Amino acid sequence: MSGPQTPEPALGIQGDAPTGARDEDAADGIQHSHRMLSFSDALLSIIATVMILPVTHTEISPEQFDKSIQKLLATRIAVYLMTFLIVTVAWAAHTRLFQVVGKIDDTLALLNLACMMTITFLPFTFSLMVTFPEVPLGIFLFCMCVITIGAVQALIVVYAFHFPHLLNPQIESSTHRALYRQHILGIVLRGPALCFVAAGFSLFFYPLSYLLMATVIFLPYVSKVSSWCKGRLVGPQEPPAHSMEFFTFDLHEPLSKERVEAFSDGVYAIVATLLILDICEDNVPDPRDVKEKFHGSLVAALSVYGPHFLAYFGSFATVGLLWFAHHSLFLHIRKATQSMGLLNTLSLAFVGGLPLAYQQTSAFVRQPHDELESVRVSCAIIFLASIFQFAIWTTALLHEGETLQPSARFGGREHAFMFAKLALYPCASLLAFASTCFLSRFSTAIFHLMQIAVPFAFLLLRLLVRLGLALLCAMRGLAQPATQAEEDAHAPLLPAAC
Amino acid sequence: MSGPQTPEPALGIQGDAPTGARDEDAADGIQHSHRMLSFSDALLSIIATVMILPVTHTEISPEQFDKSIQKLLATRIAVYLMTFLIVTVAWAAHTRLFQVVGKIDDTLALLNLACMMTITFLPFTFSLMVTFPEVPLGIFLFCMCVITIGAVQALIVVYAFHFPHLLNPQIESSTHRALYRQHILGIVLRGPALCFVAAGFSLFFYPLSYLLMATVIFLPYVSKVSSWCKGRLVGPQEPPAHSMEFFTFDLHEPLSKERVEAFSDGVYAIVATLLILDICEDNVPDPRDVKEKFHGSLVAALSVYGPHFLAYFGSFATVGLLWFAHHSLFLHIRKATQSMGLLNTLSLAFVGGLPLAYQQTSAFVRQPHDELESVRVSCAIIFLASIFQFAIWTTALLHEGETLQPSARFGGREHAFMFAKLALYPCASLLAFASTCFLSRFSTAIFHLMQIAVPFAFLLLRLLVRLGLALLCAMRGLAQPATQAEEDAHAPLLPAAC
Repeated sequence: MSGPQTPEPALGIQGDAPTGARDEDAADGIQHSHRMLSFSDALLSIIATVMILPVTHTEISPEQFDKSIQKLLATRIAVYLMTFLIVTVAWAAHTRLFQVVGKIDDTLALLNLACMMTITFLPFTFSLMVTFPEVPLGIFLFCMCVITIGAVQALIVVYAFHFPHLLNPQIESSTHRALYRQHILGIVLRGPALCFVAAGFSLFFYPLSYLLMATVIFLPYVSKVSSWCKGRLVGPQEPPAHSMEFFTFDLHEPLSKERVEAFSDGVYAIVATLLILDICEDNVPDPRDVKEKFHGSLVAALSVYGPHFLAYFGSFATVGLLWFAHHSLFLHIRKATQSMGLLNTLSLAFVGGLPLAYQQTSAFVRQPHDELESVRVSCAIIFLASIFQFAIWTTALLHEGETLQPSARFGGREHAFMFAKLALYPCASLLAFASTCFLSRFSTAIFHLMQIAVPFAFLLLRLLVRLGLALLCAMRGLAQPATQAEEDAHAPLLPAAC
Repeated sequence: MSGPQTPEPALGIQGDAPTGARDEDAADGIQHSHRMLSFSDALLSIIATVMILPVTHTEISPEQFDKSIQKLLATRIAVYLMTFLIVTVAWAAHTRLFQVVGKIDDTLALLNLACMMTITFLPFTFSLMVTFPEVPLGIFLFCMCVITIGAVQALIVVYAFHFPHLLNPQIESSTHRALYRQHILGIVLRGPALCFVAAGFSLFFYPLSYLLMATVIFLPYVSKVSSWCKGRLVGPQEPPAHSMEFFTFDLHEPLSKERVEAFSDGVYAIVATLLILDICEDNVPDPRDVKEKFHGSLVAALSVYGPHFLAYFGSFATVGLLWFAHHSLFLHIRKATQSMGLLNTLSLAFVGGLPLAYQQTSAFVRQPHDELESVRVSCAIIFLASIFQFAIWTTALLHEGETLQPSARFGGREHAFMFAKLALYPCASLLAFASTCFLSRFSTAIFHLMQIAVPFAFLLLRLLVRLGLALLCAMRGLAQPATQAEEDAHAPLLPAAC
C-alpha cells in the first residue's frame, strides 16, 4: 500500500502516518514537491492543448472556403502543433529538473510559478510569428521567453545546490555534487544559449533565428528518435558505463511514470471539456429567434442543434475511451522509456486535435457536400491518436522485461485482452475510413455507428476476447489435437472462468 | 515515505515496490482507483469553472451598458455560480462514493466515464433554464441529467457490492455489508428521487420544480452550515455514538484531503490558463491593420494591447499566489472537515471569478470613466477569494488538535508565518479598495502597484515576519522586562536564526 502511484484514496485522512519526519520538514518550510508538480503538470497540459481552440473557432462556410481561409486554418494548426511540441519539451525539462530537486521550499515554489507564467506566454509568441512571419518581433519575444525560463531554472538549480537538503537524496549524498551542478546547469542553459544567439540574429538576419529555434524545439525529439533507432538496430541498449558519465545518474533515465500520467490526464481532461464550452456558448438559442422562427417552441429550436449534441457525446466518448485505453496501458507499464514518452506525446497531440474532428462532424448539417471529407479527417485523427497508443504498447513489448508487469507480457494473462483494448480504436477508425470509400453516401451513418458501437465493444471486450480465445483454442485443438504442448503454452491466456 | 500525499516524485520509476500484490490485482483487471479519481477531479474542476468564460466574453461598451446587457451579465454570472455549486455537490458525492468503492475494474471505469459525461451536460441545462426561465424544458433536462447520474452511481454501488473485493477493506470485512449497501444507495438516490418529482412537476407546475431543484443544490450546503454552527455553539463535536449509525463509518467523515487538493488544483490551473487563450485569440493584430493604421510597425500595434498584457500578468500572478497560499495552508492541514470543505468551495468560486477581474482591468483603456468601478470589483473578488482561504485556517484553528500539524498550531514554529501568508492578500486588497475611496483618481495606479508589490511581499515574507516578531519581542522586552515567563511562551515563534 505504499507505492507512489497507489495512495489509499479511501477513508481520506489517514495519510499522516510518518507525521514525525514530515512535520519536521514542514516546520522548516521544506515541502515535498508532489502537489506543486501536479499543479505544474495541469498548467502545462492545458497550455499545450488550448491552442486548438483558435483552430476550431475558424469559421468555414462552403462559399468562402478560398485560399485565405485555407491559409488561416493551416496557420492555426501550425501554431497548435508548435505550441504542443515546445510545451512538451518544456515539460520534459521541468520533469528532469525536479528529478534532481527532490524537495521544495517557498522560494522554489514561487520561482516555479514565475517559470510557469513565462511558459504560458509562449503560445502568444507563436501566434505573432505565424501571423507576421517577416517581422522578427515574434521570434525575438520567443527567445526572450526561453531565456527567461532558462534563467529561472538556473536560479532554481543554484538555489537547490546552495541548500543541499532540497536535493534528491542520491545527489545530496554524492561526493561529486559540484560536478552534478555544473552538468545540470549545462543542460538547463543549453536551449537558452541557442536562443540568445537566435535573438541576436533576429535583429538583422531573422531566417537564421528560425533555424536555431527549430533546433531548440526539435533537437530533443530528433535525439530521442535517433537513440530509439540505434536501440532497435543494435539491440537492447546497455546502460552507458563510461567513467565520464558517472554523475548523470538519472539524466538519461526514463521520465517519471507518474508525471507522464499526470500530464496525459491533463490533456485528456481539457480536450474532453473544451467541447462543452462551445455547446454552452453557441447552442443556446436566442429567445427572439425562438419566438419568431419556431413559434415559441424551444424543443423545435433545439432540434436544429441536434447534430451538435450527437457530435459532442460522440467526441466525449472517444476522448474518454482513449483515456481509458491509456489508463489500462499504463497500469501494466512499469516504467516509461524515452521512446515511449515520445510516442505518448505524438498520441496526445492528435488527441488534442479531436475537437477539430468534433467541429467537422457538427458542421455536417451546414455543408452536406463536405461530409465525406469531414468523416475522413475525423477518422484519420482518431486513427493516428490510437495507433500511437498502440505503438507505445509495441515499443514496451520490445523490452518487456523492464517495461511491463508480468501479466501483460507475452503469454501473460492480460496480454490478449490488452492487445484487443488497444487495437479496437485503430481497427474501428480504419474500418470506418475504408467503408467511406465504398459507401460514400452513408459516410455520416457509418461514422456515427462507429461512435456508438465502440463504447459497447469496450464494455463487452473481456467477454469477446474470452470467446475469441476459446474459439481459437478450439480450432487449434481440432486442427492439431496432437500438439498438446503447444496448447498448454497458450493455456495461461485463457482465464479460469472461460 | 509512504504517506498518500507524498509519493517520492524523483527518480521516476521505483514505484513498483509492492509489485507482487498489485500485479496480482492488475492481472484480474482490478485496479487502484487513484488515477481515475485524479482524472475525474480534473474533469469536474474544469466543468465547474468553465462557465465563467461566457461571463468574461460579454461585450460591454460604455454606450451600450443598458438594462439588457446588465440582465445578460447577471444571467451569466448566475449560471456560473449555479454550475459551480452543483458541480461541487456532484464532486463531493463522487468523493463519498469512491471512499466506499476502494478499487475499480474496467466496468467501473467505464461507468465512471458515463457519469462524467452526464455531469458535463449540466451547465447547458442551466444555460437553458436561465435563458428561458418560463419554459420548463431546461429544468426537465436538468432533472433527467441528475436522475441519469444517480442511476449510474447506483449501478456502481450495486456492482461493487456484488464483487465485494472492489469495496473499501473496512466495508468488505464488515458483517453489516447489506446494511451498508442499503444506506449508501439511499444517499446516492436521494437527490435523483427529488429530481424525479421535480421532473414530474415541471410538466404542469414548474415553479415547484425550481424549489425542489434548489433543495437538491443547497441542501448539502445548508446542512453543512447548520452542523458547523451547531458545532460552534455546542463545542467540539463528539463522534455520534448511536448504535443505529454503526454502519455509516465514513459517510460523515471529512472529505479526502487528497481529493480536495486535486479539485482545487484543477480550478486554479484552469483559471490561470483561461486568460492566455483570450490573449492569443484576440490580441494578435490583423496584418492589414498594422499596415494601414500603424505604418507597418508591429511594436506600435502591440503597444495598444499593452494594458491587456499587464492585466494578464497581474491576474496570473494573483491566481498563482492564491494557489501558493492554498498549497502552504494544506501542507499544514492534517484533515479537512466539512466546514473547511465548504469554505474552500466558496473561495474557489471567487477564484473562478478572477478572469472577470482581468476582463475589468484590461477594459480600463476602452472605458476610462468606469475604471474606479472596475478596480473596486477586482479588489472585492480578490478579497473574497482570499478571506475564505483565511477562514479555512481560522476554522482549522478551532479544532487544531485534529486538523493541523503541530508546527502550525498556536505557539508552533510556523504559526505566525502562516498567519502572515494568508492575511497578505485580504489586507492588500482591502487596502487597495480603501485607497480608491480617498484617491479615486489614482485607482488604476493603486491596483497595479498592489499587483506588483504582493509577489515581492511573498518572496520576502519569511524575512518580514521574522523582523516583525523580533521587533514585537524587543518591544515587549522593553515594556515588561519582568514577565520573562510570557516572553518564553512566545519564544517558539521566533526561529532560531532570528
